[in-house]
Amino acid sequence: MQTDFCKQLGVDAPIFAFTHCRDVVVEVSKAGGIGVLGAVGFSAEQLKEELDWIDAHIGDHIYGVDTAIPQKYEGMDKSTPEELVAMIQAAIPEQHRDFAAKLLNDAGVPEWPDANDGISLSFSAVQAQALVDEALTRPKCKMIVNALGTPPPEIVKQVHDAGRLIGALAGRLKHGIAHKEAGLDFVVCQGSEGGGHAGEVTSMVLWPQMIDAVAPLPVLAAGGIGNGRQMLAAMSMGAAGVWMGSRWLISTEAQSEPAQRESYKSASSEDTVRSRSFTGKTARMLKNEWTEAWEQEDTPDPLPMPLQGYLTFDAVRRTHRYAGVEDCQKVAFNPVGQVVGQMNTEESCRDIMYSLLNEYAEALENVQGLSS
Amino acid sequence: MQTDFCKQLGVDAPIFAFTHCRDVVVEVSKAGGIGVLGAVGFSAEQLKEELDWIDAHIGDHIYGVDTAIPQKYEGMDKSTPEELVAMIQAAIPEQHRDFAAKLLNDAGVPEWPDANDGISLSFSAVQAQALVDEALTRPKCKMIVNALGTPPPEIVKQVHDAGRLIGALAGRLKHGIAHKEAGLDFVVCQGSEGGGHAGEVTSMVLWPQMIDAVAPLPVLAAGGIGNGRQMLAAMSMGAAGVWMGSRWLISTEAQSEPAQRESYKSASSEDTVRSRSFTGKTARMLKNEWTEAWEQEDTPDPLPMPLQGYLTFDAVRRTHRYAGVEDCQKVAFNPVGQVVGQMNTEESCRDIMYSLLNEYAEALENVQGLSS
Repeated sequence: MQTDFCKQLGVDAPIFAFTHCRDVVVEVSKAGGIGVLGAVGFSAEQLKEELDWIDAHIGDHIYGVDTAIPQKYEGMDKSTPEELVAMIQAAIPEQHRDFAAKLLNDAGVPEWPDANDGISLSFSAVQAQALVDEALTRPKCKMIVNALGTPPPEIVKQVHDAGRLIGALAGRLKHGIAHKEAGLDFVVCQGSEGGGHAGEVTSMVLWPQMIDAVAPLPVLAAGGIGNGRQMLAAMSMGAAGVWMGSRWLISTEAQSEPAQRESYKSASSEDTVRSRSFTGKTARMLKNEWTEAWEQEDTPDPLPMPLQGYLTFDAVRRTHRYAGVEDCQKVAFNPVGQVVGQMNTEESCRDIMYSLLNEYAEALENVQGLSS
Repeated sequence: MQTDFCKQLGVDAPIFAFTHCRDVVVEVSKAGGIGVLGAVGFSAEQLKEELDWIDAHIGDHIYGVDTAIPQKYEGMDKSTPEELVAMIQAAIPEQHRDFAAKLLNDAGVPEWPDANDGISLSFSAVQAQALVDEALTRPKCKMIVNALGTPPPEIVKQVHDAGRLIGALAGRLKHGIAHKEAGLDFVVCQGSEGGGHAGEVTSMVLWPQMIDAVAPLPVLAAGGIGNGRQMLAAMSMGAAGVWMGSRWLISTEAQSEPAQRESYKSASSEDTVRSRSFTGKTARMLKNEWTEAWEQEDTPDPLPMPLQGYLTFDAVRRTHRYAGVEDCQKVAFNPVGQVVGQMNTEESCRDIMYSLLNEYAEALENVQGLSS
C-alpha cells in the first residue's frame, strides 16, 4: 500500500516512526517505513554519533531527523550560549526550583553525578541550527521535521537547497496553514490524543480539516494510531501516511528502562494527562505525582515555555537515568499518547510493522465487504 | 453499504441520527438511516404528541427513542414526584441560584412567562419509566437508548419482552463492559470530541478498544463524525454504524432558532469546551460567557448532577425560548461536538444523508486505490 508521498520518498509503506532511539530508526526503515530520530535535547556531537551509527546500519534505506527549531525567543539572536543560559537561570524563581527539588528528593531520585554538567540549549536557535547542519551532511537523511512551529525561512531554504524535504508538526489548523505558506513540503497533524505537545482538537476532527486546508500538501496523521485499524481510519480520511510515536516506546529495540516500560504497559488510555508541568507548554504524558503536584492550588504554577523546560531539565535526566530506582516513576516524565492503553506487549519493530500492515489489510477487506 | 446490525434492524444505511426534532427523525429514517428522538426533558404527554406525529409521517420506516434512565438516586424510590422536587430545591444553595439568575439578567434574557410552570423531573426514574412505557406502545419504535449509564434490569427486561432492542451510551470502556454484562443489545461509544456528556478518551482510541471489549455486541461510533470520510474511518475500525448528533442541528428540518444556528455555523472546532456548568457532569458545548463564568476562581463551582441540571433548568429553557434576543447566546446552552467546525451550511436531512454516503463511497474508492 503506497501513497504518492511514499513514492516521492521511495519507501514501501507510509509509516513514520518518531523515536529517540537509533535502533528503532534503523529497524523501521529496514522494514519498509521511515524512522525519524527525535533529536531535541541532543548536542551536535551526540547527533553526529547517532547518525554515524544509523548510516552504518541502515543500508540503502532513508530516515528523517526531528528537532525543535524556534521562530524566535527574546534575546536569542544577540546572546552567546553562555549568556543565554545565565539569562534563563536568572528568570526561574527560587520557589519553583525548591518545589521541583523537593518532589525529586521526596521520591528518592538520586542527584545527577556531575554537578558541572550544565543544562542543554535544546530549544535555542543556535542549537537547532547545529543539528540541522549535521543532519544535512547525511545523504540518507531525506527529511527534517520541526516539532515546534513553522521553521524560519533560512532553514527552509537551507533544507531545500540540500535537496531534502522539510515538514513540521501542527496541532491547530492555523499552524498547518502557516506551514504551507512558509513553503514546507508536508504537515504532521497531531490530534489532542497524541503524546507530547498537541492542541485541543482530536484527530478524528482535526485530520480531515487539515488535509483540506493545506491541500495539496501531504498530511501525516499523528495522535491515536497504534494499530492497523487506526491506520486505515487515518488513510480513509485522506492522510498521506501515519506518524506514530508511542507505539515504539515498548518495542524491544527501544532504549527504555524496564520500569518505564512497565509504566507504559500497565497504563490505560485514561491514565494520561495534558500537563504543562514538564515543558511549560501543554503536553500529554502519563499522570503521576509530579503532574498532579503542579496542578494543586497551593503549589507554583508551571512557568511558560522554555523556562519550565530548563527548570525540569534536571528532573527529566535524573528520572530517566535512575528509572530503576523505586518510586522514581512517580515523578518521571513519560510523554505518551492515549494509545498507551493498547500497548501491552513488547514486540520487535519489524513485528510491529508487520502487524500494522496485516491489520490494515484485514480491516480494509472487512470494510470492503460491507459495500459488496 | 450494510452491516449485520442494519440487517437486523432492516434499514439501508448504518446512520443513526440523534436529535430532539421529530422532523429530523422522520427525514433521516425515510432517507435510509434511523432517526432517534432524544426525549430527555420531555413529559410523557409531550413524548406522546411527538411520537403520534412521527408515526403519522414516517411511513413504514422505523425509529428509536433516547432517554435518561438513572440507576438510582438517593430518595428516588421512596418519594413522590412532588417530594422529590422539594428535596432537590432544598439542596441547591442560595449563592448558586443568585449567580445563575445574575448571569441571565446581565445578558438580558427575559423571564419565563409562567412562574407556576415547574421544573421537569427529566432525570428521575419515575419520568424515565413513563417515557419508556410510551415509546413501547409504538410498533415502529425499534430501539430504546439510555443516555445515562446502564439501565436497570427491569427496564432491560421490559424492552426485550416488547421485542425491541436496548442500548446505551458509553464514554468509558468500563461502562461499555457493564452494558454488555447487563444484557444490552448494543453500545453507543462516544469519544471525548462528542457533544454532550463524554469521557476523556478520544474516538480514535476509544472506539477500537470498545469494539474489542464488548464483542460481539454491535458498537455505534459517536463523537467526531460529520462527513463520509469520518464515517468510513469509524467503519474501518469495526463499528456497526455511526451515531451522529451535531450534524443535524443546522439541518433545514431542525427546530433551532436562527441565532443558535448562527452560533453553530460560525464556531470553529476550537470553540467548544467540556464544562460542568449546565448539567453538573462534564459535557461538551459551545464556549460562552456562561461556561466561562462558572470556571472562575471567585464564582461558585457547579453542583453535582442532577442538582446543577435542576439549577440551570430555567436558564436552558429561557435561553432556548428567547434565542433571538440579543446577547442571549452568551449564556445559552449549545451542546455540540468538535465537528461543529465543519458545520457551515444548512442542508436538508436528505441531502446530508446523500452527502455522507457519497463521501463514504468516494473515500473508500480512494483508499482502495492505495492498495491496488
